[in-house]
Amino acid sequence: MNQIKIGLLGMGRIGRIHLRNINQHLDGARIIAVADPQIEASRFNAEYPGLFFSQEAQDVITRQDIDAVLICTPTSSHANLIELAARNGKHIFCEKPMDLSLSRTISLAEMAKVSGVKLMLGFNRRFDPDFMLARQSVREGRIGDLQIVKITSRDPGLPPIDYIRNSGGLFMDMAIHDFDMARYIMGKEVKEVYARGLVVVDQAVGEAGDIDTALTTLIFEDDTYAVIDNSRKAVYGYDQRLEIFGKGGMIRVGNNLHNQNVLFDETGIHHALPLDFFMDRYSKSYQKEMEAFIDVLQNDSPIPSGVEDALQATLIAYGANMSMRKGEPVRLSEIDISLKKAV
Amino acid sequence: MNQIKIGLLGMGRIGRIHLRNINQHLDGARIIAVADPQIEASRFNAEYPGLFFSQEAQDVITRQDIDAVLICTPTSSHANLIELAARNGKHIFCEKPMDLSLSRTISLAEMAKVSGVKLMLGFNRRFDPDFMLARQSVREGRIGDLQIVKITSRDPGLPPIDYIRNSGGLFMDMAIHDFDMARYIMGKEVKEVYARGLVVVDQAVGEAGDIDTALTTLIFEDDTYAVIDNSRKAVYGYDQRLEIFGKGGMIRVGNNLHNQNVLFDETGIHHALPLDFFMDRYSKSYQKEMEAFIDVLQNDSPIPSGVEDALQATLIAYGANMSMRKGEPVRLSEIDISLKKAV
Amino acid sequence: MNQIKIGLLGMGRIGRIHLRNINQHLDGARIIAVADPQIEASRFNAEYPGLFFSQEAQDVITRQDIDAVLICTPTSSHANLIELAARNGKHIFCEKPMDLSLSRTISLAEMAKVSGVKLMLGFNRRFDPDFMLARQSVREGRIGDLQIVKITSRDPGLPPIDYIRNSGGLFMDMAIHDFDMARYIMGKEVKEVYARGLVVVDQAVGEAGDIDTALTTLIFEDDTYAVIDNSRKAVYGYDQRLEIFGKGGMIRVGNNLHNQNVLFDETGIHHALPLDFFMDRYSKSYQKEMEAFIDVLQNDSPIPSGVEDALQATLIAYGANMSMRKGEPVRLSEIDISLKKAV
Amino acid sequence: MNQIKIGLLGMGRIGRIHLRNINQHLDGARIIAVADPQIEASRFNAEYPGLFFSQEAQDVITRQDIDAVLICTPTSSHANLIELAARNGKHIFCEKPMDLSLSRTISLAEMAKVSGVKLMLGFNRRFDPDFMLARQSVREGRIGDLQIVKITSRDPGLPPIDYIRNSGGLFMDMAIHDFDMARYIMGKEVKEVYARGLVVVDQAVGEAGDIDTALTTLIFEDDTYAVIDNSRKAVYGYDQRLEIFGKGGMIRVGNNLHNQNVLFDETGIHHALPLDFFMDRYSKSYQKEMEAFIDVLQNDSPIPSGVEDALQATLIAYGANMSMRKGEPVRLSEIDISLKKAV
Repeated sequence: MNQIKIGLLGMGRIGRIHLRNINQHLDGARIIAVADPQIEASRFNAEYPGLFFSQEAQDVITRQDIDAVLICTPTSSHANLIELAARNGKHIFCEKPMDLSLSRTISLAEMAKVSGVKLMLGFNRRFDPDFMLARQSVREGRIGDLQIVKITSRDPGLPPIDYIRNSGGLFMDMAIHDFDMARYIMGKEVKEVYARGLVVVDQAVGEAGDIDTALTTLIFEDDTYAVIDNSRKAVYGYDQRLEIFGKGGMIRVGNNLHNQNVLFDETGIHHALPLDFFMDRYSKSYQKEMEAFIDVLQNDSPIPSGVEDALQATLIAYGANMSMRKGEPVRLSEIDISLKKAV
Repeated sequence: MNQIKIGLLGMGRIGRIHLRNINQHLDGARIIAVADPQIEASRFNAEYPGLFFSQEAQDVITRQDIDAVLICTPTSSHANLIELAARNGKHIFCEKPMDLSLSRTISLAEMAKVSGVKLMLGFNRRFDPDFMLARQSVREGRIGDLQIVKITSRDPGLPPIDYIRNSGGLFMDMAIHDFDMARYIMGKEVKEVYARGLVVVDQAVGEAGDIDTALTTLIFEDDTYAVIDNSRKAVYGYDQRLEIFGKGGMIRVGNNLHNQNVLFDETGIHHALPLDFFMDRYSKSYQKEMEAFIDVLQNDSPIPSGVEDALQATLIAYGANMSMRKGEPVRLSEIDISLKKAV
Repeated sequence: MNQIKIGLLGMGRIGRIHLRNINQHLDGARIIAVADPQIEASRFNAEYPGLFFSQEAQDVITRQDIDAVLICTPTSSHANLIELAARNGKHIFCEKPMDLSLSRTISLAEMAKVSGVKLMLGFNRRFDPDFMLARQSVREGRIGDLQIVKITSRDPGLPPIDYIRNSGGLFMDMAIHDFDMARYIMGKEVKEVYARGLVVVDQAVGEAGDIDTALTTLIFEDDTYAVIDNSRKAVYGYDQRLEIFGKGGMIRVGNNLHNQNVLFDETGIHHALPLDFFMDRYSKSYQKEMEAFIDVLQNDSPIPSGVEDALQATLIAYGANMSMRKGEPVRLSEIDISLKKAV
Repeated sequence: MNQIKIGLLGMGRIGRIHLRNINQHLDGARIIAVADPQIEASRFNAEYPGLFFSQEAQDVITRQDIDAVLICTPTSSHANLIELAARNGKHIFCEKPMDLSLSRTISLAEMAKVSGVKLMLGFNRRFDPDFMLARQSVREGRIGDLQIVKITSRDPGLPPIDYIRNSGGLFMDMAIHDFDMARYIMGKEVKEVYARGLVVVDQAVGEAGDIDTALTTLIFEDDTYAVIDNSRKAVYGYDQRLEIFGKGGMIRVGNNLHNQNVLFDETGIHHALPLDFFMDRYSKSYQKEMEAFIDVLQNDSPIPSGVEDALQATLIAYGANMSMRKGEPVRLSEIDISLKKAV
């Protein structure tokens, strides 16, 4: 089987993770070209000899020897790059979301369907080994028909206010991972959403027009539900838990702690805190995500997180925002898809 | 200090627990008279020599030597017995709820205020040592300002359908404990409620006009919230958990397991299941509840679960029912208090 | 079935526990007479109206209406009281040990065999529900043939030095419970013992001729082994754990914690400490121990902790002391049974 | 700083781990040459283009451009390769043990001292992050003066009998890691050892002259002790635990489980098993071990596991074998160092 040749667009935190995971760990693919407008070519070449580099994404996308691109640039550029790559017949892996605008997301989803290129979205948590195992146990019927999914998803600290301002809001930026996880576990579509939001971590978040704390109820098409509890700041660290309750039992996925040491002293029994943040907590999910993308390209496997998933998660995020503003549940079928912005 | 003399009305499961807890464990009080229309006097006297017995509650309530009564009869008789006891100047401990009718509950609450007798309600979970400790830690500021309370409250199995038919419904019969717990922990009033209900355990529950599974969001006056997840049947047993998240940390209260044994074999690491049901799980709470009641009578201590608590929990249960039926959040201030029945 | 009438000798901590457990919780027996030379009759009668009391044990033992006695006096009086009770045809429950002298222990054991009265020893941990369940799982073959038993047994703090001086030493006073537990779980006899001892908690213990920390290896007749780790002081509380490893798996019995609350904050995840000491940790074992004694008397059930158990545990304690002094393993068959004192 | 150039001797399981860890993860060093008599050059070159390869270790050791060698060959060749490398002025990392013969081990240790080359031994568990953290906590005084170290070290299954036959025996092959860990944590020397051994996993092990189960007590110079419990087969997987008890508390290091998922069903609460074997459980320790070796070479840092450590661990293994055979404790000072073989 031929090795897949990949162009990487964007060398931020996530781009670097993909570069290392593919070029150091995967035999089936190789990143051979990189674009990033923020990096000096000389600097890049010194650090990564042998890789093609340009500050222009177009220089990478249009290369003949590239089979696929990884879009790891800021969200605002995703849509254009997806279109450019599709026009050039390159398969695409794009970090979520495709676009903050719902109508653009829908048109990108439609374009991808007709273009013949494969488009996979970066819902990396689907590839976390613990969550994958939980889903597999559910599919095997270990806990019977599902009744409720509960997700706790709390960051260890606020991102910069500037980041928040351009993030599309907590539901679109952060909770969207959890909305996708709920669909992934349940294997059903959401029909209605009820969301509450608070500014309790830092008033600056509210001044930037966002919330830092949220509670969302998702109603699935068969009336079962999921509840998702988000916070931008848990002082004890990155809290990522999942609880699935069904007619035949329950599955809980706990946090990965820093270590397995326990200290017993006069004041109590003390365990370590959870892993710091997504780079640590989800390091394996990024590896497995790239393995899955390569598998899609090499073996024509079904896309495990595709445009429909992205569209649904985005719709839910829109619905959550609307619900929060109206103080009422919102049916996804009633959302005006010509909306340009969730918030 | 004089020993408090008590009359017990109703010798069902709960009545027997109180009888044993007071007469075997508490020095400050003694149950000296019991009424239960379902028990033969001869049988009672054989088992409990030395205690006065009648099938008529009135015979107990009107005794001169009785300071207080415990009302442990079926819910439908609570209101009348409360009134009778108050008229006779007896202090009252009454199992929840006072009445299924909101208007009657309100008038009982008012009557209790003016009557001069003390009226304490049986929200026994407030006296569970683990929950008490959690609340105390919260009050001491161990986790800072509260943002969300999450309660998981699942029974190990369905009660008889006949019980369900007369229970007032899941929110009034079962979730009311959790509504009270949320207020107890938060120390604030609920202003709005959003509830969903399902019939997934047994269709017979639906045919009886009730639900067996529910998800309730409570919005407090400062917009923080609680989420409560109820089921009439968890196959792994009685699941009673609490999670409190605040600006400075989190407190979780886990289940009490049958034992501390762990089996390691080829298939996994196996722990025991949670304690079977409320008689086991909350055995200490019933003891401490009676201690608290005696303390109220002897030392004029503040009533730790009084009519206002009962009224608020009942209001929330009404709101939850309305919300479920309307598919929308309901403000408690908009509930018509002349309602006779929640369901 | 007739209610067993019991005389209680000694009203210290343990005596009071038995009194409460029998007279408040067991229908099949009643303590009707009590002796304790340290208590004023007037004081006793005020607290326990209706019970016969004398400062003289003989007054209780010789009563016609007494079926059995509980010997809860200091160790030095056990042997004489056992003999007196046996001569009066009373069944006997005696707190361990029967005597510090090995030869006297052996002669008491023999006397008990021929006397026709039943003699049960207070190895209360055999009646702890968690340990009973562990043993039952072992007997059911859940972990196959046993290879090693590991016991951790640490007290929360030093007893008074005066107590230590008269205790017979750590092996006879404290570890003897663990020696018995090892035999109870393994279901085999010990043939050899190797023990080490340290004075690291408090030099005063060494000055009193004892140790405060010990490690003992027991070799069973089939060469499998147990290892027991004792300390008079664990700063984090009473540490009572058991680990049983067999060809088919492992069973671990953990500590019972004060509560099920967990605090998450910036410094870690904090659990409660173990229950304080034997009165709390083993409260159920004392109840079940008395149930077992009554069952022995009423139903002629086999004695679950009899003189042979006491003799073997005492022999092991002697062996441990000898091994520690010699720095070598000691075969129990080589111990001179005419020894008067272990230390 | 110059990149360290390394020759790798032996491309078995461990050799491959080091190759990947250094060449893919460490900037400060590069393996540039490999020797393995069992591998065809053509095959090697196909898999690892750009690396020098020979079937002869000498071809690698004598290369001018090599600073250091990693000896990952079978134990029987270690001594000769250490000598050859030292004579050629190459620094050495050697998997444990240096040699099965005590006298040869001692002479190698002495040679290393005078040769000027650095010699580090592969006690990889010293570099496990959890154990390192435990040791650091101990050194920081978190649990005060140490009283006992307890190590549980059980393999998930028997190695081939042929492997066992050439392994030097359980103490030298397997328990030696735990002997070293006990010294590493305690920071003191062992003066005496008492060991028991059993053949209970498979009689074939006994026929091969070895044991499959062992219990070892180590007495340190200040009379404190460690106890180590080994088995070649735990059906529930690789069991690697550590418990350190001191005057001020306890530290426990638990197993790393396959995942953080917990299944609750009618039969119990089920957790995943421990990681399979050393390749998984200690994957990080192999990385950190190589980092430490490079640090020793580049920065002249103290050798964290040197010849003295190897010598002491080997001596303890000899002592354990002797003790098991004699049925008595053995003082290390009395071991005849001219012994050629432990078993």
